[in-house]
Amino acid sequence: MKELIELVDKHLDEYISVIYPEDIFKAMKYTLSLPGKRLRPVMCLETARILGAEFEKAMPCACAIEMLHVQSLIHDDLPCMDNDDFRRGKPSNHKVFGEAIAVLAGDALISFAPQLIIEKSVGLSAEQIVRLLHEYTYFAGAYGLIAGQVVDIESEGGKFVKSPAETLNFIHLNKTAVLFRLALRCGAIIANAEESVINEFDDFAKKFGLAFQIYDDIMDEISSFEEMGKTIGKDKLSGKLTYVSLYGLDEAKDKFNHLIQECHGIMSKYESRIFDEILDKLKHRIGSR
Amino acid sequence: MKELIELVDKHLDEYISVIYPEDIFKAMKYTLSLPGKRLRPVMCLETARILGAEFEKAMPCACAIEMLHVQSLIHDDLPCMDNDDFRRGKPSNHKVFGEAIAVLAGDALISFAPQLIIEKSVGLSAEQIVRLLHEYTYFAGAYGLIAGQVVDIESEGGKFVKSPAETLNFIHLNKTAVLFRLALRCGAIIANAEESVINEFDDFAKKFGLAFQIYDDIMDEISSFEEMGKTIGKDKLSGKLTYVSLYGLDEAKDKFNHLIQECHGIMSKYESRIFDEILDKLKHRIGSR
Repeated sequence: MKELIELVDKHLDEYISVIYPEDIFKAMKYTLSLPGKRLRPVMCLETARILGAEFEKAMPCACAIEMLHVQSLIHDDLPCMDNDDFRRGKPSNHKVFGEAIAVLAGDALISFAPQLIIEKSVGLSAEQIVRLLHEYTYFAGAYGLIAGQVVDIESEGGKFVKSPAETLNFIHLNKTAVLFRLALRCGAIIANAEESVINEFDDFAKKFGLAFQIYDDIMDEISSFEEMGKTIGKDKLSGKLTYVSLYGLDEAKDKFNHLIQECHGIMSKYESRIFDEILDKLKHRIGSR
Repeated sequence: MKELIELVDKHLDEYISVIYPEDIFKAMKYTLSLPGKRLRPVMCLETARILGAEFEKAMPCACAIEMLHVQSLIHDDLPCMDNDDFRRGKPSNHKVFGEAIAVLAGDALISFAPQLIIEKSVGLSAEQIVRLLHEYTYFAGAYGLIAGQVVDIESEGGKFVKSPAETLNFIHLNKTAVLFRLALRCGAIIANAEESVINEFDDFAKKFGLAFQIYDDIMDEISSFEEMGKTIGKDKLSGKLTYVSLYGLDEAKDKFNHLIQECHGIMSKYESRIFDEILDKLKHRIGSR
């Protein structure tokens, strides 16, 4: 796991050179280089590997997904959105580079990620690349990530079109699970997997994404700034709709444990140490409270 | 020309359906539907046509380029950028939908545009689509449009890394010419044109883009809100670096006329009424002052 993270970090750094106008490339690299668990790229690489493709084939796509993730964090932290001054324990992008450059750095990452897939992918057919780009653009936009963010923002403002439970489920699936789905689906596509296998990994990703968001909701309730590297307790203060606020801490933990169990079940036949490690780590941090 | 604009308007409207969560799709469609000259999509379609491809083949790509253009306008108008309350004579996106949704609508358009090329293109090979997406992502991001915007913002703040003349040229080429280059290059690629022909149209687009920006700089000096549909005279008030502020009105007009002449020269062998009309209209509006 540690080696994979280092490999991802190395490539994230290498893929973007700082040229004129330097500030935009520095801003893109700044949030990208903050230490993270790199869950999405690692899971993309591992999916490709256990389905028979070499790591190298999946590296550009794995890094592109992390770039999309980081883009969403940069724009999420903006004053007009979550207005968060810290990210991964450091000042957020707009605190360092100003709002205008932070908006543009996010914009640039949305385009750079698919550009990377096109320019750096080796050994993939044009059809495979088109398929990857289709997955990327679909999940990145108004049918995925952005839809989740919109409903999240509107529900915070007290605007509900659907019931609170449906709304929360939509947010979790689109704001959080979507990037795991993208990571696993792309990994499987790179390995030329059959549709049934792609769907199996997609199913894992939906469940994992939901578990991961519940984990995040629980941690916002019981953890600290030092542990999470971002402002904690904001959800509660702002009366935000979360799994914990809607179902209570105990039911949230039960749901989380059940989803992790299901994820283990789906992944059991592949004997992946990486996936086991990721699932166990999450479970351990929640379980030890 | 009028028919082509209507055809583009119709497709821009049809390509985006308003589904849940409605606000994001409404926000995307709002700025997109404001009446415009649709120069970039029209020029993309016309390039494809005069090089032997049917309009339909180029329509998704032409509309995708207009979406990218509109995205840049939405983010450009934000309070943290140009802070402009009007666009094409109407309240700008963030004045109608709020800043958060305006940021997200722009983000969504950056992804939706290439998604459209993938989903709606008919009769193009996977290799052609990858090439179109490469052009799109390259010119949309930190190597094109965004680079131009960054240098524009920084020069307004008095930050110059290069000389004012070089800086202005970089801004014009990247902020303005880039979308015309994208439009013409993609039109030529869709028509399966040879590299030499792609380069010829690229050369036209660079010259046209520069002329168009000089036109805009001149109009900001001598025109009115009613005529342009946006706040006028801002450049002068803010002491912004423009072709007029750097070279004076007369030299700007001379340069503009010279570039339009060169554009006519490049395009003469294709006998395109559309390109002639576009060039003549710009020239007429400047010449009649």
